[in-house]
Amino acid sequence: MIDPDHIDGQNTHDEAHVLEGLDHLRRQCERRGLDLDVVRQRLARFEVAIPSWGVGTGGTRFARFPQAGEPRSVHEKLADCAVIQQLVRCTPRVSLHFPWDHTDDLAGLREEGEALGLGFDAVNSNTFQDQPGASLSYKFGSLTHTDAAVRRAAIEHNLACVEAGVALGSRALTVWIADGTNFPGQQDLSRSFERYLESMEAIVAGLPEGWMALLEHKLYEPAFYSTVVSDWGSSLLAAQHLGPRARCLVDLGHHAPTVNIEQIVARLVHAGKLGGFHFNDSKYGDDDLDAGSIQPFQLFLVCHELVQAERRGALPTDLATMMDQSHNVTDPLESLMLSAVALQRAFAQALLVDHAALEAAQQSNDALVAAEVLRQAFRTDVDALLASVRQEQGGALDPLSTYRTSGYRARIAAERPAPASGGGGGIV
Amino acid sequence: MIDPDHIDGQNTHDEAHVLEGLDHLRRQCERRGLDLDVVRQRLARFEVAIPSWGVGTGGTRFARFPQAGEPRSVHEKLADCAVIQQLVRCTPRVSLHFPWDHTDDLAGLREEGEALGLGFDAVNSNTFQDQPGASLSYKFGSLTHTDAAVRRAAIEHNLACVEAGVALGSRALTVWIADGTNFPGQQDLSRSFERYLESMEAIVAGLPEGWMALLEHKLYEPAFYSTVVSDWGSSLLAAQHLGPRARCLVDLGHHAPTVNIEQIVARLVHAGKLGGFHFNDSKYGDDDLDAGSIQPFQLFLVCHELVQAERRGALPTDLATMMDQSHNVTDPLESLMLSAVALQRAFAQALLVDHAALEAAQQSNDALVAAEVLRQAFRTDVDALLASVRQEQGGALDPLSTYRTSGYRARIAAERPAPASGGGGGIV
Amino acid sequence: MIDPDHIDGQNTHDEAHVLEGLDHLRRQCERRGLDLDVVRQRLARFEVAIPSWGVGTGGTRFARFPQAGEPRSVHEKLADCAVIQQLVRCTPRVSLHFPWDHTDDLAGLREEGEALGLGFDAVNSNTFQDQPGASLSYKFGSLTHTDAAVRRAAIEHNLACVEAGVALGSRALTVWIADGTNFPGQQDLSRSFERYLESMEAIVAGLPEGWMALLEHKLYEPAFYSTVVSDWGSSLLAAQHLGPRARCLVDLGHHAPTVNIEQIVARLVHAGKLGGFHFNDSKYGDDDLDAGSIQPFQLFLVCHELVQAERRGALPTDLATMMDQSHNVTDPLESLMLSAVALQRAFAQALLVDHAALEAAQQSNDALVAAEVLRQAFRTDVDALLASVRQEQGGALDPLSTYRTSGYRARIAAERPAPASGGGGGIV
Amino acid sequence: MIDPDHIDGQNTHDEAHVLEGLDHLRRQCERRGLDLDVVRQRLARFEVAIPSWGVGTGGTRFARFPQAGEPRSVHEKLADCAVIQQLVRCTPRVSLHFPWDHTDDLAGLREEGEALGLGFDAVNSNTFQDQPGASLSYKFGSLTHTDAAVRRAAIEHNLACVEAGVALGSRALTVWIADGTNFPGQQDLSRSFERYLESMEAIVAGLPEGWMALLEHKLYEPAFYSTVVSDWGSSLLAAQHLGPRARCLVDLGHHAPTVNIEQIVARLVHAGKLGGFHFNDSKYGDDDLDAGSIQPFQLFLVCHELVQAERRGALPTDLATMMDQSHNVTDPLESLMLSAVALQRAFAQALLVDHAALEAAQQSNDALVAAEVLRQAFRTDVDALLASVRQEQGGALDPLSTYRTSGYRARIAAERPAPASGGGGGIV
Repeated sequence: MIDPDHIDGQNTHDEAHVLEGLDHLRRQCERRGLDLDVVRQRLARFEVAIPSWGVGTGGTRFARFPQAGEPRSVHEKLADCAVIQQLVRCTPRVSLHFPWDHTDDLAGLREEGEALGLGFDAVNSNTFQDQPGASLSYKFGSLTHTDAAVRRAAIEHNLACVEAGVALGSRALTVWIADGTNFPGQQDLSRSFERYLESMEAIVAGLPEGWMALLEHKLYEPAFYSTVVSDWGSSLLAAQHLGPRARCLVDLGHHAPTVNIEQIVARLVHAGKLGGFHFNDSKYGDDDLDAGSIQPFQLFLVCHELVQAERRGALPTDLATMMDQSHNVTDPLESLMLSAVALQRAFAQALLVDHAALEAAQQSNDALVAAEVLRQAFRTDVDALLASVRQEQGGALDPLSTYRTSGYRARIAAERPAPASGGGGGIV
Repeated sequence: MIDPDHIDGQNTHDEAHVLEGLDHLRRQCERRGLDLDVVRQRLARFEVAIPSWGVGTGGTRFARFPQAGEPRSVHEKLADCAVIQQLVRCTPRVSLHFPWDHTDDLAGLREEGEALGLGFDAVNSNTFQDQPGASLSYKFGSLTHTDAAVRRAAIEHNLACVEAGVALGSRALTVWIADGTNFPGQQDLSRSFERYLESMEAIVAGLPEGWMALLEHKLYEPAFYSTVVSDWGSSLLAAQHLGPRARCLVDLGHHAPTVNIEQIVARLVHAGKLGGFHFNDSKYGDDDLDAGSIQPFQLFLVCHELVQAERRGALPTDLATMMDQSHNVTDPLESLMLSAVALQRAFAQALLVDHAALEAAQQSNDALVAAEVLRQAFRTDVDALLASVRQEQGGALDPLSTYRTSGYRARIAAERPAPASGGGGGIV
Repeated sequence: MIDPDHIDGQNTHDEAHVLEGLDHLRRQCERRGLDLDVVRQRLARFEVAIPSWGVGTGGTRFARFPQAGEPRSVHEKLADCAVIQQLVRCTPRVSLHFPWDHTDDLAGLREEGEALGLGFDAVNSNTFQDQPGASLSYKFGSLTHTDAAVRRAAIEHNLACVEAGVALGSRALTVWIADGTNFPGQQDLSRSFERYLESMEAIVAGLPEGWMALLEHKLYEPAFYSTVVSDWGSSLLAAQHLGPRARCLVDLGHHAPTVNIEQIVARLVHAGKLGGFHFNDSKYGDDDLDAGSIQPFQLFLVCHELVQAERRGALPTDLATMMDQSHNVTDPLESLMLSAVALQRAFAQALLVDHAALEAAQQSNDALVAAEVLRQAFRTDVDALLASVRQEQGGALDPLSTYRTSGYRARIAAERPAPASGGGGGIV
Repeated sequence: MIDPDHIDGQNTHDEAHVLEGLDHLRRQCERRGLDLDVVRQRLARFEVAIPSWGVGTGGTRFARFPQAGEPRSVHEKLADCAVIQQLVRCTPRVSLHFPWDHTDDLAGLREEGEALGLGFDAVNSNTFQDQPGASLSYKFGSLTHTDAAVRRAAIEHNLACVEAGVALGSRALTVWIADGTNFPGQQDLSRSFERYLESMEAIVAGLPEGWMALLEHKLYEPAFYSTVVSDWGSSLLAAQHLGPRARCLVDLGHHAPTVNIEQIVARLVHAGKLGGFHFNDSKYGDDDLDAGSIQPFQLFLVCHELVQAERRGALPTDLATMMDQSHNVTDPLESLMLSAVALQRAFAQALLVDHAALEAAQQSNDALVAAEVLRQAFRTDVDALLASVRQEQGGALDPLSTYRTSGYRARIAAERPAPASGGGGGIV
């Protein structure tokens, strides 16, 4: 991890203008009749999980271009996550993916996490790849495969993930399946879904008390004609079928072009089925870019729905939120830090909405003012507030600069020699 | 209507090559092990309703370019619909829209229909336009308006439509609302939906025994940021909330780009909530083009889902199907005739799928053969079969040519002088 | 127009916190090494034209819901535009549309504009609607019609627009045609384009010295299968064919979903063919919403391209920029004021980009920092700067509140009685 | 290769009904006034190249699921291609990809191809992956990289591909670069394009007499914010800049959603810059599915544009056409055979358009009949014609069944043991 003195030193350098910015924000809030302290308190509780696979360089079907210092084990992934949390202080949990993060010593891993200040968020199963030596293949599906033996294997893998999660202190299983078809007719669209429901029944039946199954839908990729759980409607149908322990997870990049995602969030809240989020950003498909990097206003509007739901008492307190991103051209740790801050920023801006003014404008159909109330909150510069909250919790006022000057990447690059192969793979 | 002798004369001219084509199709079916007579019998029962407003020239916000002979009343619309049914024989019902089709003598209208060989399909309410003299406006919504008085007016209009439908022998009310917003914040996304549910409860409560409320969703237009009932998930939630008399209607043009519509159909069948269709075709948005004119294979795949559902006994027998098209550059009667035939064609091709081969290929994950089985059915030339079924029921072997040579358009152009104004309107 | 004392009174009320905000911004700029005065000077020259038709309530093919005080003539439109300019001071020109804005006394109109502080921007032709009494119809096209007589009429209308523009002091003709098809095969895609080129040659040949023809492309609507000038590639081909007086106009809502519009701007700059913009915002299609209301970051990125081009000396100094919006649910004057400010804001933020830092990051492929440099500029709160620039030029610190408290809408509502008809039209 | 006696035996079995189908088609053509023999002669000259990489199983960033008998070298790829050509007889050339298909003995490879009845089509360069041991990386670009040394390496690789192509008898180089950005600001959009032009100048300068450079554009993937050559407009600008030896290549899956691809083809023909095609099909993005499997009508419309251009003498005779598909769930050889047939089918249907009727309908703006003329051609069952043409050239009447019964896959599965690793890779 990074030397706390280094963080303090950097913070000292940035403190004056953060205070100045905070002062300015306080005056703005006073003019708008908002209580900045209330906002600050809620903001201080904002958290988002880090995906263990996110700290390595991602890639596409064309290529992967790793950088120096890639983590080679779940332990090195945890170490990287700890640095992120050390600096940004709103990412106290890691979400593991099995079998990628498999270890025989889960109790040891849990202790390792605790020592690093990290807990464990939802566990993720993987039935979209075949594992070396596996006797059955997921080529034609997993939980929805026509062959009951393959379905059984996929169910058992999910249950094994739950078992691992229990050992780690997790409380949720996220199930994303790649099942679908590339051609019309390849499978019966109805029967595939029925098989999904049946398989998920077995998984949900195996959940311990207090656990939640998060159903993740996705429009397409890797299946290019149909996907069994392709939209929030299918996800909802499944969650309704599976009962109170099943809820829907929204990944911001898994929707059809132009769809209004914030309204989907509102509908799932209405249905009592919102379970969590995979945050990222995208322009085309499931691009898995850094949160807030492409459509920051959309991210704010999603957060606004969460704040609204919380105000109505309709937001689940156990919402599972994670950054699900693929860092192909940046240092993954830097991207995760700035993405966590981007999420915090959007949430802070949503907390700064003048709800009284908004509701009055809505009630009188004053569309212009209603819209302007939201935009004013979105335009508010909250960077000083975020920095101040981070510092209060022991983090860095400027995480990026603190990280860069710490020499962490150079250190791990030295400690973690790259595999000999050299060339970044790729599948076209 | 058109002189039956004219139809007979035209049919005589086309008969030989229809028989030749039928013969060829019969041999193809024999080779594939399909029973053409069974297909023919089912096909003979295929029906789709005509929208009363579809027989007039449509337009866009930019302009409308009427042609000679536009219908000026519900009576002239019925006359036009009767000609379509006379020639194609699979459009025995008309779907009215109120207040556009308002008349004080509904009993007389019903008799008029009967005399023309026409019944009445689902009735449609209109709360997306203000009517002259209306004291309340739908500018900011109807069933979801913040003002209870506007909601009440919209509910009452819907109940009045039901009452009219009862007098006409209809069995369903189709509810499409334009309610939504143009700007983030303009309305509360959750409360709007709750108001929709509450309003719809009052409407469903007013439905007579045996009636169905069809909930129509649409992604966007005329609202350009959010639409209250924007997707099949929202429609499903509402239909579940409203109970067994509420079902979902699928308009082929009301989805986000790239969405797999045939799978939505399968999901609604699974949920027991498929209520009906508005058929049309589109490339960009709700283009309302002629059925099968842009993506004929997609139309076939939708019909394949219907055939599959029927084979499993899962298809409602009271499915409400209608052509919902805007005929801006063609003679609307010609477009409706060819569209009805296009729907019949897609359905016939779906009936010709070799289900045994398809299921075997699906079961063994032979994606290529499964896909090819569907494509082979889609490629089958069924025009002679369609023609033959039409003739058997008294229609025209070649509806377009029979219509054009009948002089019907010239006759109505003479009988129905255009209004003086001349210029086709438009709203930019 | 609005009483200047009223504006002054309002400004007095807002002055303190604007100064405070300006102070804060100045300190931010100093920290970033940016010269706020240079930014301010460039910003003071930012201008965007008002479309004459934008001050009336817009609508969709489904309905139009007018409000009280709708302008009934080009004179009332000018009066409304003058109020906008009086308050925001960056909209000194009006763009007219013919024949909608036809008047026999163009010289008088020009004087009327001058008296109101308004000049005249690009003139717009209309060959997408038929005019009452017209002997030829644009139903099947205008400049690309198969009938040479229709093409000739469309050419002559465009030349008449130029003549009117000359009288008004305009320097550009914007040509948007609705020509296209609803069905594959309806027209020959190549020949339609060739006819377009031929017709445009005649129009460009008729342009006076110093005039520019702006070619506007649009993906779809009102044509729903193909549009003759559907994309920037087609627009570019045409502008190249037509020579130096023809350039391309970019409407932000006229592109396919997910397309990178700012890169199109960069490509047209590269080609020396960027002519102007129609600003608005959209989520689905050509939604014509208020600029910056849906995707403010995209608007900033477009402005960033303009600033970059200007820095390289590659930006034409005669760029024609206009707000092309349809105000369906707001007071159009309010929407236009806030949209002008939104454009100014995005431009101001683009001026605040730290170009040295950006280029250094680009050169070293530091994707994260390069992106963050842009986002930092986008997040900068420039509202006080905009207000201050407006005030300096005689406008309102808070245009919306100044307008609302001025009573202008109530006054014109009284002066301009609505037509008797009542119902808002619509074409489905 | 497959035993010719096996093919003959299969053909004997299928001959009767092919003749019957041909007879039926001939009668249809006679009724429509079309000369089937002329169509047949043109059809017999239809050819499309096989991509060498297409005979191996493809994958996505999530996984790859190989099947038995995967080709392990360019020689085994050629053997597989030869079987395809043996059966379908319209795929006489293979398109190689370097360095994937690198061999030190190009002369030997050319002879090997000749012995198998195969020539070599356009060669493809690869600057989207790093090769083991490469000292420079394409992580941040290739031909557009900020570092001149990387650009130089990429140029030299392309020139090496040309050299290899010369040895093989190719006549074209296809250049697809993955260059672009994941974040706004990551690169200067203009300068990247300028560097592309400069690099391509060096490549085009190195083309031998008679060679063509095919510029391939793509909207997105693997870059997710901007792509340097993202659309046909950019491709056109580059081809214009680079002179007569540079032309544009259209991949059917590389466009924004809803874009009218057939019109792009028409525009490139108009500009004299159409160079070739990568055929495939897609529903969402660059899905690389089998040609004609998702939108068969669109494929027909593209072929219609080619036929139209040829009729006008505007189609280049050296058009480079290839199937660019990723076969993830099918036997790649089967997919390539059926895709080649699907292309042949669409082309045959386009040849069957009644052009006289089409032009008459277009001229008189009879949109309905014009559209119906195209649809009638699309609906024509030409399978017997395709089979007959194949047989005439020594191929199989039913390529799929002939292939399956030949035992080829089992044979190569035995001859080509899979690598030990087992698990199919993947990059998330």
